[in-house]
Amino acid sequence: MKIILVGFGVIGRGVAKVVDEKRKSLKEKYGFEPKVVAISDSSGAAIDENGLDLKKAIEVKENTGKIVNYNGKELSSVEVIESIDADVVVEATPTNIKTGEPAKTHILKAFENGKHVVTANKGPLALYFKELVESSEKNGVMFRYEASVGGAMPIINLAKETLAGNEIKSIKGILNGTTNYILTKMEKEKLDFNTVLKEAQELGIAETDPSQDIYGYDTAAKIVILANSIMGMNKTIDDVKIEGITRITPEAIELANKSGYTIKLIGEVKKNKLVVEPRLVQLDSPLNVKGTLNVAMFNTDLAKEVVIVGRGAGATETASAILSDLINIHFKAKEK
Amino acid sequence: MKIILVGFGVIGRGVAKVVDEKRKSLKEKYGFEPKVVAISDSSGAAIDENGLDLKKAIEVKENTGKIVNYNGKELSSVEVIESIDADVVVEATPTNIKTGEPAKTHILKAFENGKHVVTANKGPLALYFKELVESSEKNGVMFRYEASVGGAMPIINLAKETLAGNEIKSIKGILNGTTNYILTKMEKEKLDFNTVLKEAQELGIAETDPSQDIYGYDTAAKIVILANSIMGMNKTIDDVKIEGITRITPEAIELANKSGYTIKLIGEVKKNKLVVEPRLVQLDSPLNVKGTLNVAMFNTDLAKEVVIVGRGAGATETASAILSDLINIHFKAKEK
Repeated sequence: MKIILVGFGVIGRGVAKVVDEKRKSLKEKYGFEPKVVAISDSSGAAIDENGLDLKKAIEVKENTGKIVNYNGKELSSVEVIESIDADVVVEATPTNIKTGEPAKTHILKAFENGKHVVTANKGPLALYFKELVESSEKNGVMFRYEASVGGAMPIINLAKETLAGNEIKSIKGILNGTTNYILTKMEKEKLDFNTVLKEAQELGIAETDPSQDIYGYDTAAKIVILANSIMGMNKTIDDVKIEGITRITPEAIELANKSGYTIKLIGEVKKNKLVVEPRLVQLDSPLNVKGTLNVAMFNTDLAKEVVIVGRGAGATETASAILSDLINIHFKAKEK
Repeated sequence: MKIILVGFGVIGRGVAKVVDEKRKSLKEKYGFEPKVVAISDSSGAAIDENGLDLKKAIEVKENTGKIVNYNGKELSSVEVIESIDADVVVEATPTNIKTGEPAKTHILKAFENGKHVVTANKGPLALYFKELVESSEKNGVMFRYEASVGGAMPIINLAKETLAGNEIKSIKGILNGTTNYILTKMEKEKLDFNTVLKEAQELGIAETDPSQDIYGYDTAAKIVILANSIMGMNKTIDDVKIEGITRITPEAIELANKSGYTIKLIGEVKKNKLVVEPRLVQLDSPLNVKGTLNVAMFNTDLAKEVVIVGRGAGATETASAILSDLINIHFKAKEK
């Protein structure tokens, strides 16, 4: 399988590292031989139709900040997608939740050029899901995005494949590790929101501008992706009622505790209703997971409640989801 | 897809009911049209190559105890498997953990006759896994058994497909709902083991002969299936170190609680070590699930810990897992 890797930040390098380290075991276990033939970032591209040296590519990027220094082709990502022969484009540019770009353009260009796409990018999925899916279908290629929600937690493929035959009536869960870390810490150490946020920023768990997380927008984008991909809806982030966690106090959590509850930032999608808000969760509920963990509960007609818990972030964890998508494409493409 | 249903007890009827009720939605959603052409039990078989009336079949069985009264063919299950044209055999006879029969014979006959097999039956899987898998491969047919471990909790397909690319280093969890119900009740109401067991028997949660559950053999059989199917081992139940829950007291659980733990019957498989035993579990661990719920935690190299929680038993829940296997076979067979 020939792969173009678009975007070479933390996620892109995570994918390169995992593909490089797993080369032997993937071949042995699945007969799967991924070959990264191009990597692009905003500086240009590294290209080798026989497969790039991924260790060197990572080194070049980490030492010079620019992948173009690998072997110096000043092509744009779009030019790479259009001109390089490959089976799959892994889109790993930074998420832009307002425009979905440049990922949206990359994904559409890949489809138009007959290339499958795997992405971790929430932006285009939360904004243009229907357009993207229709384009992939029209062009007869596959589109997979397990990594876009819940990082290593295999939520989308679990619902669509492992629970096949079930009607998914609702999905609710904790889809943002940063806010879960903050609420867990506030509960455990009875500290106020701003103190814990500052500490989370120092630890790198919260970003310098934490607004996407703490106001609930990141969770909302993920809820939109779940609504569209699993429940067949056609929603955007404007359809979500959103409230963040900035007004939660340690006193409120303590009060909840006394009655057998805790407070979590819950995203939920059910019949035409998308909500992100702090909610009371029973202390002994499977939804009461701690720290940066993510969790999702499916309510289904046959299996009833099914809950999945996993790490929602991290380069290797996200690469795990991207790799599972690549392996699935490998098998589906082979069977055709 | 033409289906032979072998065994028409609670699970078999659950499958028939779900297939009947979902007929329309399965066709719309997946283009999947399951047609049950034969149902056999120890009395004989109901056969109709145009598809049986499943409502009538369930009624006949529930009113007379014998499926042969549907349209009166006194064929054995083996004869049905050999003589009736079908794509898939759903093996749903009662589990025999000592011999694996008659399920083992049914499964092998199906393979030899070019039929895929879906089963919920732990017996043959825990005793003859390698032989069965090799026979399915030799005969070029598929063998799926999601329902054999954890009922509706999609544990096997989750590990093999959704987490593809990950090395599964260990699996541990609560794989028996009866013992989890007993321990949860002992913890909550400070009652002793025998009192709660008796109550569970009255509620139908524990069987009249509860030994498979309370001595840990049921969990052990499931651990063997996970070891063989997910981790590529070749184990039988004799390889499992087993201890049940009969010696747990409410005082022991209370003592554990005071230190932030509870006591659960945990089955674990890791590098060449299979164990079932009561263990301390942290109160805030995702493994601390209540009542009859099942839970499994995978430890993997990329995704790190992934936890799945679901209902481990029940006719509809088990039928959910069987249905997902049938749909997967439908797609894989179609792609060939």
